[in-house]
Amino acid sequence: MEIIEATAEYLVDNMTGLTGSAYGVVKPTDLAELVDALTFAKAQQIGVIVIGANTGLSGATLPEHDELLIDLSGWNKILDLDEATGSLTVEAGVTLNQIYDYVEARGYFYPPDPGAKQATIGGNISTNAGGMRAVKYGVTRDFVKALQVVLIDGTVLELGSINQKDSTNYDLKDLIIGSEGTLAIITRATLKVIAQPQVSQSILISFDNLDLAIENVAAILKTGVRPASVEFFEREGLKYAEIYLNQQLFIEDGEAFILLTLDGNLEQVGQEKVLIKNILKNSRTQVDLSEQQAKIAWQLRDNLAAGVQAQTIAEPVDIVVPTSKITETVKYLKAIAEAEKLEIVTFGHAGDGNIHALILKKSLSDQLWQKSLSNYLEKMYHYVNQVGGLASAEHGIGTLKRPYFIKHLDPNLYSLYQKIKFAFDPEGRLNAGKKI
Amino acid sequence: MEIIEATAEYLVDNMTGLTGSAYGVVKPTDLAELVDALTFAKAQQIGVIVIGANTGLSGATLPEHDELLIDLSGWNKILDLDEATGSLTVEAGVTLNQIYDYVEARGYFYPPDPGAKQATIGGNISTNAGGMRAVKYGVTRDFVKALQVVLIDGTVLELGSINQKDSTNYDLKDLIIGSEGTLAIITRATLKVIAQPQVSQSILISFDNLDLAIENVAAILKTGVRPASVEFFEREGLKYAEIYLNQQLFIEDGEAFILLTLDGNLEQVGQEKVLIKNILKNSRTQVDLSEQQAKIAWQLRDNLAAGVQAQTIAEPVDIVVPTSKITETVKYLKAIAEAEKLEIVTFGHAGDGNIHALILKKSLSDQLWQKSLSNYLEKMYHYVNQVGGLASAEHGIGTLKRPYFIKHLDPNLYSLYQKIKFAFDPEGRLNAGKKI
Repeated sequence: MEIIEATAEYLVDNMTGLTGSAYGVVKPTDLAELVDALTFAKAQQIGVIVIGANTGLSGATLPEHDELLIDLSGWNKILDLDEATGSLTVEAGVTLNQIYDYVEARGYFYPPDPGAKQATIGGNISTNAGGMRAVKYGVTRDFVKALQVVLIDGTVLELGSINQKDSTNYDLKDLIIGSEGTLAIITRATLKVIAQPQVSQSILISFDNLDLAIENVAAILKTGVRPASVEFFEREGLKYAEIYLNQQLFIEDGEAFILLTLDGNLEQVGQEKVLIKNILKNSRTQVDLSEQQAKIAWQLRDNLAAGVQAQTIAEPVDIVVPTSKITETVKYLKAIAEAEKLEIVTFGHAGDGNIHALILKKSLSDQLWQKSLSNYLEKMYHYVNQVGGLASAEHGIGTLKRPYFIKHLDPNLYSLYQKIKFAFDPEGRLNAGKKI
Repeated sequence: MEIIEATAEYLVDNMTGLTGSAYGVVKPTDLAELVDALTFAKAQQIGVIVIGANTGLSGATLPEHDELLIDLSGWNKILDLDEATGSLTVEAGVTLNQIYDYVEARGYFYPPDPGAKQATIGGNISTNAGGMRAVKYGVTRDFVKALQVVLIDGTVLELGSINQKDSTNYDLKDLIIGSEGTLAIITRATLKVIAQPQVSQSILISFDNLDLAIENVAAILKTGVRPASVEFFEREGLKYAEIYLNQQLFIEDGEAFILLTLDGNLEQVGQEKVLIKNILKNSRTQVDLSEQQAKIAWQLRDNLAAGVQAQTIAEPVDIVVPTSKITETVKYLKAIAEAEKLEIVTFGHAGDGNIHALILKKSLSDQLWQKSLSNYLEKMYHYVNQVGGLASAEHGIGTLKRPYFIKHLDPNLYSLYQKIKFAFDPEGRLNAGKKI
């Protein structure tokens, strides 16, 4: 086992810009070497953090306590596609891009669709990543059949199975999903893949303002039509992505947009298109996108946050609220931005209640920025909690949202979380201080 | 808090005929009284078992250690239907029949469909009940958004939410689902309800033998058609239900049957019907059932097990295997029955790999029955484990399958299960000795 020095990519958090310090980095080549690294960490009594593709958005893999970093990004083999049961088995370091390419070439579809396609599946499972298509298909959790995990003491466990029913086991698989590397190390996953939909049609619709766009999303969802994805964003936010990708969107008018995709069989998609056209109110332009146009539109949407963050310091918001509360929540986000004199770009997965926003620093002094941002977040998370929402829909809690998460968490539940953590990791050495 | 004497309904297990002994029964009227009961049990250092409708099929609620029985069957109020998010909130003692009646009258659909409609939702969640419609819609787990639970120390917790994404919490809700009352007491559930399908068409098909029926199920599923349910059974088993309900099935020919339901919109169901007709091989008769006929056919199917058990002692089998292993597993079940000279009735949810069977005692002496049955089960669970299946698909482990479950469970996983159990219930007083 070779321990190498941690370079900047490991020590500077992409999102927060915060820096940490690590004992070193190991890149195990197999399970035995991974267990060796854990044995070494145990002997040294140091913490352990698993590293994937470094695409996290909540600071969950930043070493804060001189941890040993275990880099599994090299574990990138696709191991098996069992077509009889629709089960794809992959190593934890396999990226979303690898999965999409592999299954699409074989006529299958892996629906979860988070923005960062270079993310590893291990990271996606650790945060229970959501993405664009959750409104119809669900989140990562809904597509994980089984996991191989390694406990901090080196024990290798197989959780879940490809069986469609299970009244046999305690459901530890679902407990691991979304636990942000604090309970066990994910080394392998068996994913559910489904048949590719016959057609996929993206539609772009422009409006004079965001309120109109969001009201129309609500109206679309009320028809019972289940688009694969329904996104909203504003021209103001779009501009950052256009500059970032050096690529323009092809609608000139309107200040806010709905970008949605219908998929399924040809007839059904045709019917849904008519239904949606009939329900739209006060829209400007509506375009059925060609395949090429759809690719560009979705690339722009995927790169909204990255585009903003390339141009200014920005705090990412990843709240989720019950779908009945989307409109009022977006209005509230805008209202407190105005009150705190902060610029804000909102966008999000309108169909599933997951609202993203970026709060922009721009030319504010560090001091004013910290103060205004802190006020903003206090108010926002308080509001989210009141309407029955959650601090994180798909990015995870990490370090970034920990204070707000803990503040609104029932202390009795927090205490039980700590007992669960203890059951898996009695010395508290696995991604210590993250999430809880 | 009044403690009443436990009558026979609490002390004799429906399924196994085994008897137990209890400290007494309490029927709390609200959360405060439930907590009182738990405080009392703590002071007396006695165990606690929660009782629902007594429809369990694995002996999971039989008191083996003079426990205090907490009967929540009176907690039968439907509390709220939030149409904006498709969320139905009910008390734990509400029955499936109550749920179906309530949501159907309002145009909604709660898909999980286990045989015993008089079962409580608390019991369904405790076993992660499956039922007929899992092939298309999934199991109980897939329709539970949130739970209110009470820990053995009286702490009341809210787990999960109506949000469609969650990267915030440890997923304790899914850990409770299927834990058979060993981790916490379920007092309230928020369920997912969906729009009623436009049409629902049941089809009955007869074959000369079970092999043909099962091969045809595999062929149907290969077309990509997703029936809401696909069941197979034999005339031999059917006879027990016919006698039990005093009701005949309306197909005279054939020794084995497929009973399936297609649901969705009219057009789609029509297309699927044609697809299925074209794929069938060596079938005898095929009937598109009228609503009245469908009701009778499904009642007969629902009462297969009850019918058998009313007429002889029978061991229920509730295994699940990967769907690619269904045919060979059913053949194996029949082969070992022949080898052990046991009569067996097989039926099951062919679409999802969940195979039921009843092994019949009939006129065998107690001694021979015990010996043959024990041989049978040893072989069967060994086989199930080898093909990657599980001891229980939907009934739970309880006491009935515990020895086989433990035998095939990874000892390291068992050890972790015990630590999880300890995190919830450090004194081990909640349904002690069940499942694990």
